[in-house]
Amino acid sequence: MFLDHTGREISSQVEAWQDAHAAVRLAASDLQSLWQQGQYDSVIFTGCGSTHYLAMSAAGLFQRAAGVISRAVPCSELLLHPTLVYGARKTLLVTISRSGATSETVQAAERFKTNFQSDIIVISCYDDKPLNDFATINLAARAGQEISIAQTRSFSSMLVMAEGLALAASGNPLPPQFSSTLSAQVDAMHTRALEYADPDRYQRVFYLGSGALYGLACEAMLKMKEMSLTSAEAFHPMEFRHGPKSMVDDQTLIIGLLNAHTYTAEIAVMNEMRALGATVVTLSEDAQTDIVLEGNKQRPSIVHYLPFLQWLAYLRAVNKGLNPDAPRNLDQVVIL
Amino acid sequence: MFLDHTGREISSQVEAWQDAHAAVRLAASDLQSLWQQGQYDSVIFTGCGSTHYLAMSAAGLFQRAAGVISRAVPCSELLLHPTLVYGARKTLLVTISRSGATSETVQAAERFKTNFQSDIIVISCYDDKPLNDFATINLAARAGQEISIAQTRSFSSMLVMAEGLALAASGNPLPPQFSSTLSAQVDAMHTRALEYADPDRYQRVFYLGSGALYGLACEAMLKMKEMSLTSAEAFHPMEFRHGPKSMVDDQTLIIGLLNAHTYTAEIAVMNEMRALGATVVTLSEDAQTDIVLEGNKQRPSIVHYLPFLQWLAYLRAVNKGLNPDAPRNLDQVVIL
Repeated sequence: MFLDHTGREISSQVEAWQDAHAAVRLAASDLQSLWQQGQYDSVIFTGCGSTHYLAMSAAGLFQRAAGVISRAVPCSELLLHPTLVYGARKTLLVTISRSGATSETVQAAERFKTNFQSDIIVISCYDDKPLNDFATINLAARAGQEISIAQTRSFSSMLVMAEGLALAASGNPLPPQFSSTLSAQVDAMHTRALEYADPDRYQRVFYLGSGALYGLACEAMLKMKEMSLTSAEAFHPMEFRHGPKSMVDDQTLIIGLLNAHTYTAEIAVMNEMRALGATVVTLSEDAQTDIVLEGNKQRPSIVHYLPFLQWLAYLRAVNKGLNPDAPRNLDQVVIL
Repeated sequence: MFLDHTGREISSQVEAWQDAHAAVRLAASDLQSLWQQGQYDSVIFTGCGSTHYLAMSAAGLFQRAAGVISRAVPCSELLLHPTLVYGARKTLLVTISRSGATSETVQAAERFKTNFQSDIIVISCYDDKPLNDFATINLAARAGQEISIAQTRSFSSMLVMAEGLALAASGNPLPPQFSSTLSAQVDAMHTRALEYADPDRYQRVFYLGSGALYGLACEAMLKMKEMSLTSAEAFHPMEFRHGPKSMVDDQTLIIGLLNAHTYTAEIAVMNEMRALGATVVTLSEDAQTDIVLEGNKQRPSIVHYLPFLQWLAYLRAVNKGLNPDAPRNLDQVVIL
């Protein structure tokens, strides 16, 4: 049992995945109708911080499923630099916010409605907040709500919704419901993460992921910063060779989020970094990687990458004597 | 005088800007014809490492000038995840590579030609390398060629070309040629950067920039890593509030690349970080900022942000006893 909120929220997330899956399945036909009738030729996913990183993954998944240009843009860029983002196209906006009350997200939605009168899908953990008023369709991951400042189960359950949205809108079948037995996998990741959570052994952490996993690498980077005040960064694996690898030494921990179909190109980067002295931990559904995401066989989803990443940040924080519930300098929602 | 290549290359960059300006002006009518006849409805800018960051800035500038969706995508993503990037649209590809020989860039261009038979513009410091063979139009910043591993004047001169490309293609007039007197500004930035180059005073550096300046913030981050092996990261200013600011303490140096039209929103972030103990240095053409980019009045360009950022990395490296010409673990070109 965990004495802090963050540990309880990470540990209990399979229920939140199930709730999110059920909610997006319920909305599937509405999402498909909206997409078919809307004839959008551009989709923008937007959020702030963690939910911007979620937007990155969601945009990749959506473009792959629907074949329409889908981009992730931070809310502040929509507000400050609209001419660098919006064009003549008919755009669908997907806003993501745990609280449904983040000032920049609400303002971005409001301006989008005023300027383009087009549709907005809201992904949140609530359905009665200021952001929800702008939604054509609200997708609420209620069981993902959190007391903690750092997003964990809220992120993973909103990710489940974003995956479902991509499939539902494009008329693809949703995968089956998550089984409750997956909680044992989440617990097992706590044990695996402990092996790499020594704050004296590793001075900096790099998270490498490509495609839809790049957004998760960014989210893992932010978790590590917020909870454990550790130098952490995210890069695309092959990009890491183009300069950032200058930072690699024997106090470097590299977490490789690998895709099955890009394994060969990516494991070459991992092996190169091992040769430079880094400790490398690889995750995928493939039995060749250090951490094997067994849950993916029962229910395909990139959400299975998250528990290890969340526990790693959490356990490093605990090992440093920090309280994961109380990140330095931060509040739960940014209200301006 | 500088005894190393990097110092000489940073110091001499105004000549490279002039050369790049002249080259893009010469190509302006060809670029406009290509753009008008091509009827592209999507533009992808791509590169690796520094040139991916250049692609980010270039995509923003191009979309603002031409009003067509323009995205920056690392070459490796085009190779590994084409379905997350390419759609049904008619796409113009702009590849950026200092050497014209980077394996991933050449492969991305080759596959694009094979799969889409559409046009490619190559921005490079050469015009006789493997990448150039795929170009409909080659833009070569020859005076930007370098001996150093870390890109400095090559980056800035290719940036001048990307700015010119955006204006020329969209039928806007190019600004005037850069004056040789701007070299005095580059030298002045050496003096200003010295004030913040004490490696004992600052343990980590954050570069904050929005819009087209975000790519420059990323490039500054990479320069700081490569040359001085210092923890450095780039964020959009308002994104920095959503988690990363947990890392801020009195050993933190924050470099704010500010836009004139977003000053109010961004200076609020800077002031908040000052209150948390960070040393904050702001740059813009505005007299209110710490570093005033006077060159922008003579010849508008975001290139004026670069000399201070390059000198800061260079001087911190020198102060740490490192050789800026020899970044750890790196080669000049990544050939796979």
